[in-house]
Amino acid sequence: MRILSSQVAEHVGETVCVAGWLHRVRALKSVTFAVVRDRAGLVQVVAADAELVKRLGELPEETVVEVEGTATANPQAPGGVEITSPVLRELSDPALTPPFDIYRPVVTAALPTVLDNAAVTLRHPRLRAPFEISAASVSGFRGALEGLGFTEIHTPKVVSSATESGANVFKLDWFGRNAYLAQSPQFYKQTMVGVFERVFEVGPVFRAEPHDTARHLAQYTSLDAELGFVTDHRDVMAVVRDAVAGMVAAIAERAPAAVELLKVELPEVPAEIPSIHFADAQELLARETDEDPRGEPDLAPAHERWLCDWAVREHGSQFLFVTGYPMAKRPFYTHPDPERPEFSNSFDLLFRGLELVTGGQRLHRHSDYLAALAARGESPEPYAGYLAAFAHGMPPHGGFALGLERFVARMTGADNIRWTTLFPRDLHRLTP
Amino acid sequence: MRILSSQVAEHVGETVCVAGWLHRVRALKSVTFAVVRDRAGLVQVVAADAELVKRLGELPEETVVEVEGTATANPQAPGGVEITSPVLRELSDPALTPPFDIYRPVVTAALPTVLDNAAVTLRHPRLRAPFEISAASVSGFRGALEGLGFTEIHTPKVVSSATESGANVFKLDWFGRNAYLAQSPQFYKQTMVGVFERVFEVGPVFRAEPHDTARHLAQYTSLDAELGFVTDHRDVMAVVRDAVAGMVAAIAERAPAAVELLKVELPEVPAEIPSIHFADAQELLARETDEDPRGEPDLAPAHERWLCDWAVREHGSQFLFVTGYPMAKRPFYTHPDPERPEFSNSFDLLFRGLELVTGGQRLHRHSDYLAALAARGESPEPYAGYLAAFAHGMPPHGGFALGLERFVARMTGADNIRWTTLFPRDLHRLTP
Repeated sequence: MRILSSQVAEHVGETVCVAGWLHRVRALKSVTFAVVRDRAGLVQVVAADAELVKRLGELPEETVVEVEGTATANPQAPGGVEITSPVLRELSDPALTPPFDIYRPVVTAALPTVLDNAAVTLRHPRLRAPFEISAASVSGFRGALEGLGFTEIHTPKVVSSATESGANVFKLDWFGRNAYLAQSPQFYKQTMVGVFERVFEVGPVFRAEPHDTARHLAQYTSLDAELGFVTDHRDVMAVVRDAVAGMVAAIAERAPAAVELLKVELPEVPAEIPSIHFADAQELLARETDEDPRGEPDLAPAHERWLCDWAVREHGSQFLFVTGYPMAKRPFYTHPDPERPEFSNSFDLLFRGLELVTGGQRLHRHSDYLAALAARGESPEPYAGYLAAFAHGMPPHGGFALGLERFVARMTGADNIRWTTLFPRDLHRLTP
Repeated sequence: MRILSSQVAEHVGETVCVAGWLHRVRALKSVTFAVVRDRAGLVQVVAADAELVKRLGELPEETVVEVEGTATANPQAPGGVEITSPVLRELSDPALTPPFDIYRPVVTAALPTVLDNAAVTLRHPRLRAPFEISAASVSGFRGALEGLGFTEIHTPKVVSSATESGANVFKLDWFGRNAYLAQSPQFYKQTMVGVFERVFEVGPVFRAEPHDTARHLAQYTSLDAELGFVTDHRDVMAVVRDAVAGMVAAIAERAPAAVELLKVELPEVPAEIPSIHFADAQELLARETDEDPRGEPDLAPAHERWLCDWAVREHGSQFLFVTGYPMAKRPFYTHPDPERPEFSNSFDLLFRGLELVTGGQRLHRHSDYLAALAARGESPEPYAGYLAAFAHGMPPHGGFALGLERFVARMTGADNIRWTTLFPRDLHRLTP
């Protein structure tokens, strides 16, 4: 009966069986040390038997083995325990040598090598760790929203028209008809507010992003939520706060080894995240920095960074909501600020210098949708299925979206989103 | 401060505020009853005020309203409570009339009408209920697997070659190159056994299914799992059992109203689900029925139904594993039965007459993959990224897949999988 490497210490003096990958073999004069890696960590195996020493000398690292032996306390061994008098059985063919040494604590390969050889390189504990944080994050997201009465939905990833932005969509042959990969579940999640009031979805979205940057992917995992019966965007921001707090708490609880290995500094999520209006943020930047961004329709990356530093100084928070972005830069379904209709009831959540979440209140009256589309010179026809929801009665609502890979990149300090994506898809990369 | 319809009874004598859709308006001689529907259910509002009675007479059903009034006990009212002396505020434009009456207990529309008008028809409690069961099922699946040490992954839905089956794939323009929608996460989940040992994924899969049947969709939600260090397929079957038990338990716990409304008979999941070998199943059918399927490479639908009835009679179980399907009908990565290599270490889980889960042990030696592909006359070249995992050392492993919409259809007794899919995609349907 196999036990995990982390359980060996509980069985000192007993015969135990572990199984995993031959992480490292080191031959000394009289004995050979073999380190076996499984999903829980590493355990040292000590071979003194001449025949086994010889076999171990011939077995390539990454070969899969099962080892039965005696769990023996040894303060010198990693974890204070090792397996002695081992009997070893190979479970795979002898393994091909990885493109870099998986057993070294640091990753000596560059990103393209890591991605080209993901099947083996992601076995490196440092390269695997972001995905443990990713899994914990999603679990925390779902747990927080389920606790708030949200229902999980699954919506189509293939749609009939290239709506919303028009550009950057992937075109598809759908039984001889043109179709497109969905850029977001936006229309569907709004529609489903009419059915469930509060919905969330975790799923892939597709952007035919022609730029090759460290922050963009052609497929990523979007964490989407939408809720009805809001007063305005601030009700949505309260849910964002709880979702992000749930994600951070889940990382701490479910992925402590990854947090430690990557030295992740998990942020405090304030009970109420500080917020600043877009116009006030511009005033602040004009007053406190050398630049005057007033009149610009959006914040520059440098301004987002400055505002994040300001939020830490002023509010002791690594998170900052910027609200009220100008309507001009937001999609047609955005709800204006009733008091100042050139600004919107929208927000971005900034974290450590970058935008992490985008959201806001949406229009909910059918007549407002027709007017908004007309104002942009767009026909309502391609939006028929979406507009039907509003024609049939929809409450004031809003929602948000958070890119999972970007969230994990921010948490782990990764300099490229591809470090936090299992098999990235982009302009150049369609394999493995 | 809004409360839900289900909470009104806790506030008898107090002023309460509810909000939702105007489900039904009934004008009697002296008073008008308005039933408001929210995500928790229905609540009756009694209007006696002449002006309000007039307004209610003009408001179409499905208009979104907010109602403030006194929670008043009334044994005659649904739930024993109603809202009196109401003040009503409209939250949406007056609603367009739905294609059928949402307020009637039975659904009077046919499936195409329901699907064409999903934005409003799914608000019917009977049509919404399957999706509450769906959300609970997925939550139970994840909970069971997380409890067993599985890590959630997210894999590419766009791939570079049309592998696995070759047919039935959707072709895509990927920045000017040919690409294909992924038919399953099979190759990726196997590869990730090399990294995490135990993985699962909940995500869309795409089949360019040219047949228009009640059981097939072009996009569905696949619940996939894969685990390493198995002895054979029976270790996988034990995980299937726990996953399905977790799903059924979660339905009971998280969607009791939907279960009651649809009169779902939740099955018992035995601690060990009975199993029968494919060859023994054929013998049994030959002996006990008028047909002799021996020599056939697969079970006919009628045989699956007969075997399910047999499992209920013989084992008191609505679930039955059929194991050891002939290798000829299984994909190239299937592990043969070492004792009888014409049979495979695979299984189907049958439930109420239909296949619910397919799974099995996979090949894990690189040399076996090369041999299996050669035997089928296939080049290893398009599989390079996948085969790399085995070249670098993979443990014995296996896994399974379960279609969410089909699972919910089986649980709810739906006669068409489209009743359990929010926005189905098929040969004909690409909207809404």
